[in-house]
Amino acid sequence: MSRVIVDVMLKPEIHDPQGDAVLSASRRLGFGTITSVRQGKIFELEIDGPADDAALAAARELAAELLANPVIEEFTLRSAE
Amino acid sequence: MSRVIVDVMLKPEIHDPQGDAVLSASRRLGFGTITSVRQGKIFELEIDGPADDAALAAARELAAELLANPVIEEFTLRSAE
Repeated sequence: MSRVIVDVMLKPEIHDPQGDAVLSASRRLGFGTITSVRQGKIFELEIDGPADDAALAAARELAAELLANPVIEEFTLRSAE
Repeated sequence: MSRVIVDVMLKPEIHDPQGDAVLSASRRLGFGTITSVRQGKIFELEIDGPADDAALAAARELAAELLANPVIEEFTLRSAE
């Protein structure tokens, strides 16, 4: 069993209203040093078998097909454990 | 300017219907080796000043107060770049 983590973020040029709302709230709470917030999604995948190239390839394919919208989002893979 | 990433995940004992839905969809798409999916949130914070203990402390306080619901979620901090 291996674990792969997929981070999905909006592309930098895409406006992020969720992140902006969090930034506004952080200012109201007095966190004046925080200048930008971008919000994204994490998917922790557990995959049968070792953490090898096949597991990473399956995670990458799933991310491209299902987890991220390639028009507005980009993803990165991390191997966990 | 420093960047801190906050990962927010449901606690392991909390049921994750979003993750379950992604798992079902992945099976329909033929990804038979994926056995579990848990979904969470990422917040990329940009903080004025160096990536020192003060920046991490601000991020940790914001995560505990605003970004995560401590009843059902847990968070981890990562320093980026």
